Amino acid sequence: MLDDLRLQVCEANKALTAHGLVTLTFGNVSGIDRERGIVAIKPSGLPYEALTPNDIVLLDLDGETVAGTLRPSSDAATHVILYREFPAIGGVVHAHSTYATAFAQAQRALPCLGTTHADHFRGEVPVTRPLIADETAQDYEANTGRVIVERFRGMDPMQMPAVLVANHGPFTWGSTVATALENAVALEAVAKTAYATLALAPETPPVSGHLLDKHFQRKHGSTAYYGQEKE
Amino acid sequence: MLDDLRLQVCEANKALTAHGLVTLTFGNVSGIDRERGIVAIKPSGLPYEALTPNDIVLLDLDGETVAGTLRPSSDAATHVILYREFPAIGGVVHAHSTYATAFAQAQRALPCLGTTHADHFRGEVPVTRPLIADETAQDYEANTGRVIVERFRGMDPMQMPAVLVANHGPFTWGSTVATALENAVALEAVAKTAYATLALAPETPPVSGHLLDKHFQRKHGSTAYYGQEKE
Amino acid sequence: MLDDLRLQVCEANKALTAHGLVTLTFGNVSGIDRERGIVAIKPSGLPYEALTPNDIVLLDLDGETVAGTLRPSSDAATHVILYREFPAIGGVVHAHSTYATAFAQAQRALPCLGTTHADHFRGEVPVTRPLIADETAQDYEANTGRVIVERFRGMDPMQMPAVLVANHGPFTWGSTVATALENAVALEAVAKTAYATLALAPETPPVSGHLLDKHFQRKHGSTAYYGQEKE
Amino acid sequence: MLDDLRLQVCEANKALTAHGLVTLTFGNVSGIDRERGIVAIKPSGLPYEALTPNDIVLLDLDGETVAGTLRPSSDAATHVILYREFPAIGGVVHAHSTYATAFAQAQRALPCLGTTHADHFRGEVPVTRPLIADETAQDYEANTGRVIVERFRGMDPMQMPAVLVANHGPFTWGSTVATALENAVALEAVAKTAYATLALAPETPPVSGHLLDKHFQRKHGSTAYYGQEKE
Repeated sequence: MLDDLRLQVCEANKALTAHGLVTLTFGNVSGIDRERGIVAIKPSGLPYEALTPNDIVLLDLDGETVAGTLRPSSDAATHVILYREFPAIGGVVHAHSTYATAFAQAQRALPCLGTTHADHFRGEVPVTRPLIADETAQDYEANTGRVIVERFRGMDPMQMPAVLVANHGPFTWGSTVATALENAVALEAVAKTAYATLALAPETPPVSGHLLDKHFQRKHGSTAYYGQEKE
Repeated sequence: MLDDLRLQVCEANKALTAHGLVTLTFGNVSGIDRERGIVAIKPSGLPYEALTPNDIVLLDLDGETVAGTLRPSSDAATHVILYREFPAIGGVVHAHSTYATAFAQAQRALPCLGTTHADHFRGEVPVTRPLIADETAQDYEANTGRVIVERFRGMDPMQMPAVLVANHGPFTWGSTVATALENAVALEAVAKTAYATLALAPETPPVSGHLLDKHFQRKHGSTAYYGQEKE
Repeated sequence: MLDDLRLQVCEANKALTAHGLVTLTFGNVSGIDRERGIVAIKPSGLPYEALTPNDIVLLDLDGETVAGTLRPSSDAATHVILYREFPAIGGVVHAHSTYATAFAQAQRALPCLGTTHADHFRGEVPVTRPLIADETAQDYEANTGRVIVERFRGMDPMQMPAVLVANHGPFTWGSTVATALENAVALEAVAKTAYATLALAPETPPVSGHLLDKHFQRKHGSTAYYGQEKE
Repeated sequence: MLDDLRLQVCEANKALTAHGLVTLTFGNVSGIDRERGIVAIKPSGLPYEALTPNDIVLLDLDGETVAGTLRPSSDAATHVILYREFPAIGGVVHAHSTYATAFAQAQRALPCLGTTHADHFRGEVPVTRPLIADETAQDYEANTGRVIVERFRGMDPMQMPAVLVANHGPFTWGSTVATALENAVALEAVAKTAYATLALAPETPPVSGHLLDKHFQRKHGSTAYYGQEKE
């Protein structure tokens, strides 16, 4: 089981490069075994092409290393907070993909301008507030997780599986590692298209509520009819 | 014959990735056997790299599956309407390529600013109106086809083998599956160039009517002289 | 000798794809044997990957085919005019690369904003006037060549080996086929960088005359010191 | 030892292409053996794919060739000045990557808008003044080095391992050849993201001082905790 989780997390980290979401080592993927309460995450600063399942670090939900000889990703504390606070998620992806990061740097929520956005994210993708000096000085990475959780108060993270951290970049998640990765890919694609749309027509309004709901529900929930039946 | 059609449709779906027109599974290609009235289309949600001709689903012109064990693309009803209403077309491509989609999201027709555009599309590529709530709630995909047909009233779909569906993305078509795909590739290329042109000079006017006609006729109709003689 | 020219022209056409300068079949390269007065050019509409030296069509300087069974590029008459009027050139490249074409569509000369531009083009790359209706109706491709020549009156095509044809796209040339191709690659690179520069700072002035001359002369003429000595 | 340096410099030059930082031969990497005072640099105008360690030219700190039969990069004098004036650096990269060059052409410092920027560069990346006519006429490449050094008066080149030369492009450096290359890759990535951010929100302010310091120190200095322990 944990071998399988390490393998999934290793493969998803490598896929960041294949999908063009990362430069150098600027991104990381983790997954969780909910039964055991164990998070598997990329080690810090290692190049993706050299990564093997054995390099993946295992943490408990206090962020303590329980297996692995390498240092976990410097962003591990952010991932751990998300797993603690969003109990339905099974995987987390953090990247610095160009267009999602541009919205994060501009501290501008990513509006829902089209159907691909609505297929994955139910409304505009929110942006956190910037951290204050004290939050940066102490427990910086845990505080990054906390401002995400603060921003999601009253929201369902399974309907909005993405956030833009101000001045930083996107985090996405999903019920599985694979879905978290799919959401990271989709987020960058819709951010790039939104960027181009706003350049053409800065006042473009979001799509209608009925189109948003239709597309989100085509892919999610009990009446979904996109894709094949799951056995 | 239908084996050949399935093969063409399978190959054209895979080519969407090679041409950079799709992310994840966000696009689909279909073709029709006019004699038999059978449409061959991509199954819903399958990754392109795994697709084989056997996976291609066959539908009649009411949209009912006549062969294949997989669910057809969720956009199948849109394709079927286009085949019913545009009797000269042999293939349809739907993608969410970045720049064509940006024009669709901005609800802005794609103006003809250059000769490559004129080679493929006789004038500006039109954009549909958005669907109203009732059209989204019931028969959404068929209604997407219907707003395209509504927009093309009085137009010849063989002279304008593309449309931008508001808030959604482009559909292209052609006399064959290969031509529909070529038009999808050309549409994204001219949309990207138009985007850059309008950024440099927002008031750029469309090309003159004589240049538009010259280029369209160089490639189409009885006096065409682009390419090699067809046997 | 002509075998060698056909091979060079064939390879340079294929290189258009490798350098990302063309979509589908939207570009063509030719070369000339000045002694024999024979132009070798891509056949019309053929995919680059299938092209062999045998497919290359040979024309005389009246544009008549003297060898080859395929139709020459529909732009052949433009190439032939350039060879007749610019006696020092040995190769011509026509592409529709995105950013050079955006300047051509905006009918805006490409300003010299940096040293890479100055390494290849001595000043701003000029744009032609649009063709009038009569010029489009009759001998369209030859007239395209003629408006280029008209624009270059008083200019040295070896110091400015590129032009933007209004509403159409770039032509580049050079003393050899390889240099014409290098100039096409450089033109698109500097056009993309100029596009981004003008987006950041629309009033960016051209580089100083002394920097322009320094860089152009570093690579060209009797005092050049870029690259290795030619044997 | 010098074999090893030549190999590193050769590999880093080839990596410029793999990272998409150069077109044609528009870039060069060098490294230094501080003990011997010998700089190893790319020869001028050679294509990267053909480069072998034997082609790398060795220079002393007066810029005189001490080994190698090829001409050194035409920018060698700039590299040599940087090694003389910045004693802690071990490698230098010069490229004309699109977005870093756009800022250089616009003569606009690259503001620190996000954490990836802060990971590598402690504050905004400065831009030099343009050279005056006399500086261009005589010892142009050495003077390019001198305006960089002039711009860095009072600054620590190890905290700001990059500069934008006006009308020209970026130079980056680092304690090793590999770090200089990493900084070149990071610079282009953050320049592209900054470009997109400023297009979305032209008035975006730089990140807070505490976030800048936090991220720079996470990767550099005695309290760094990014990556694995160095043995």
